[in-house]
Amino acid sequence: MCQLLGMNCNVPTDIVFSFTGFAMRGGHTDTHHDGWGIAFFEGAGVRHFVDHQAAIASPVAELIKRYPIKSRNVIAHIRKATQGQVALENCHPFVRELWGRYWVFAHNGDLKEFHPVLTGSYRPVGCTDSELAFCYLLQELHARFGDAPPALPQLHAALAELLPSIAAHGTFNMMLSSGEALFAHCSTSLHYLVRQHPFPTAKLSDEDLSVDFSQVTTPQDRVAVIVTQPLTTNEQWTAFAPGELKLFVDGMVQDTPVA
Amino acid sequence: MCQLLGMNCNVPTDIVFSFTGFAMRGGHTDTHHDGWGIAFFEGAGVRHFVDHQAAIASPVAELIKRYPIKSRNVIAHIRKATQGQVALENCHPFVRELWGRYWVFAHNGDLKEFHPVLTGSYRPVGCTDSELAFCYLLQELHARFGDAPPALPQLHAALAELLPSIAAHGTFNMMLSSGEALFAHCSTSLHYLVRQHPFPTAKLSDEDLSVDFSQVTTPQDRVAVIVTQPLTTNEQWTAFAPGELKLFVDGMVQDTPVA
Repeated sequence: MCQLLGMNCNVPTDIVFSFTGFAMRGGHTDTHHDGWGIAFFEGAGVRHFVDHQAAIASPVAELIKRYPIKSRNVIAHIRKATQGQVALENCHPFVRELWGRYWVFAHNGDLKEFHPVLTGSYRPVGCTDSELAFCYLLQELHARFGDAPPALPQLHAALAELLPSIAAHGTFNMMLSSGEALFAHCSTSLHYLVRQHPFPTAKLSDEDLSVDFSQVTTPQDRVAVIVTQPLTTNEQWTAFAPGELKLFVDGMVQDTPVA
Repeated sequence: MCQLLGMNCNVPTDIVFSFTGFAMRGGHTDTHHDGWGIAFFEGAGVRHFVDHQAAIASPVAELIKRYPIKSRNVIAHIRKATQGQVALENCHPFVRELWGRYWVFAHNGDLKEFHPVLTGSYRPVGCTDSELAFCYLLQELHARFGDAPPALPQLHAALAELLPSIAAHGTFNMMLSSGEALFAHCSTSLHYLVRQHPFPTAKLSDEDLSVDFSQVTTPQDRVAVIVTQPLTTNEQWTAFAPGELKLFVDGMVQDTPVA
């Protein structure tokens, strides 16, 4: 299995603190040493870093921990291979373009007997069930909405319909973003919190590091952090229910779409 | 205008030496300071780094100069904006998937009155003529070959037919790779050389740096370097003719396809 980390904010925010704790699980405080990756949206553009080395040993991960890239939507992943060999093309997150936007996707879990029919518009490059699910998802969204991208509530409703058919094949904790918002779906384990004024001092559970967020934020800032297992020991994390899909916009959880 | 750098080799090779000289042109020895990018194939996977900062000031470029990522196909670009604002989504190289492979593309030049009809399978995320040309090119390759990827000679012949129709709109120096080979097309300025046994000591023209390649290679290694303007002062670079398309495989120039 793997672990996921996502961030959705109302202003561009750096993820150095959360990523530092998360990356420790890539071979140090946990056994996810079969590669890692992170994607940051900056406007419509994406910075995409993947590495098949363990996150704790990776010079690229070291860069991310030192270089405060500011972004409103970030998805990161550390991998413990279950399907697909340890290779760069199997590292999450995956990136594809749909409707003139980049889409970023990462998955934690394992899908069995999952053989969707692909029409050819999106094909996996590597050999993971995860990239296959991502290609299928974009294909189905394109089939449903054609060349006109839907508004967020319609997209939310479409995903709420589509995701259970994939999740029926096994464990499907996943995150998806096109830079505008972040969707997170839980099969077995996802937690989130929203940091906002008055900002706390947060203490990482995986490394001896604390940050007083009130010193590095304005009262208007709002940051949602979504992760497989809580990253800090002194904040209140909310667990997702199994089967739950949440949409985060501007650092806030949105309401469930009306069916 | 911009500058391009490509590398195609028969064994995974690091591009640190060539990139170090090339990156100096990103704001130091030349004025290409509106972003830069580089993509390395590793097997079927791609490491893709883009930055809208000048290459000489970019922490990510610093990482590339220090971290010897080994690859058989690399495409790099430093940008001086002519069309499209300075933004991450306008930085080359661009990456898309076709036939279950990633394709990497970078362009130097300026296209005028270029308004191809896009069917929706590939749409630009940014606002450059370059990304538009790339989307059009992949769309046309897919239209020509369907879901079955062609062999290299057929692909070479198809590009030899398609590229002049784009180049007719202006300057279209470009590089394209799907990790198997590297195509380079010249409108106005491209040069290449093949480094092989006996390897020389090469001296950069943009920085006071030399490398004795015989110390870091085996006699079987072969490396083609393709660049807008020659990178070294003591090697023989061959200029492309205007309108010329060259295919590099395993560090060697291939013959022109039979029409």
